[in-house]
Amino acid sequence: MNIRLAKKEDAYSILELIRELATFEKEPDAVIINEDYLVENGFSENPSFTCYIAELENEIVGMALFYYRFSTWKGKTIHLEDLIVKQNKRSLGVGKALYKKVLEFAQKQKVKRVEWVVLDWNENAITFYENSGAIVLDDWRTVQMTEKALNKYLK
Amino acid sequence: MNIRLAKKEDAYSILELIRELATFEKEPDAVIINEDYLVENGFSENPSFTCYIAELENEIVGMALFYYRFSTWKGKTIHLEDLIVKQNKRSLGVGKALYKKVLEFAQKQKVKRVEWVVLDWNENAITFYENSGAIVLDDWRTVQMTEKALNKYLK
Repeated sequence: MNIRLAKKEDAYSILELIRELATFEKEPDAVIINEDYLVENGFSENPSFTCYIAELENEIVGMALFYYRFSTWKGKTIHLEDLIVKQNKRSLGVGKALYKKVLEFAQKQKVKRVEWVVLDWNENAITFYENSGAIVLDDWRTVQMTEKALNKYLK
Repeated sequence: MNIRLAKKEDAYSILELIRELATFEKEPDAVIINEDYLVENGFSENPSFTCYIAELENEIVGMALFYYRFSTWKGKTIHLEDLIVKQNKRSLGVGKALYKKVLEFAQKQKVKRVEWVVLDWNENAITFYENSGAIVLDDWRTVQMTEKALNKYLK
């Protein structure tokens, strides 16, 4: 297995992984970004994210996408937005290798915290995270306001 | 009331608000950043965040600090990290004015979503957010790994 930083040329494969996961989660239409958007925002000056990809026999089978956030208590932190492994390439250690790679990046950057979210019913993932030393916060809830809702509110 | 973008010179007042909130939440020692760090990361080239402050009679009484994130489904989004109003200046509309200002910023930037977190027992806040058109997601949990934990994991 080879893990490396993603390049512009990987945008199509990255988008395929994103779409595969969205389809699996029964929300295929939720992905509104396209390849150009991904290239423009991830592989230009001041990129919005960093992405590692995992290759098996020259096939891209997984990705981990993350970026910086800013905690008013801890300063710069890293947010792991997506860790995706192709359905038919699970249980080969790809996910764990990507996970470690992101944590190593965080370690090098000396950030005080790495953060991500998990679905509360995803027990396998939660057990894995907790065994690695992460903590699941039970009392915080994510709040989202869509563009449509905020346009309505500000009208 | 005057709401404006924060400047470098406001860093001390911003940090005071951050510390006041941490003390209120019984975690005064959790704030490890200092004024220099705030200036360096927020008021230099490629700042890590944007901050609005609210003034009442030339006193800084509130702040809203936010930054971009990247959704693999929606593209660029905005994360509202902190919205703080001084304890003795509550109920004057400062929080709502800052909230609207951040949403207006998001509207101008045409991001598809604004996101933040709330404590699940904070019913007043949740009601306010929901009345404004935001949605509280019940099934996602925040996961955090501290620098100490990841150093241990990667050892």
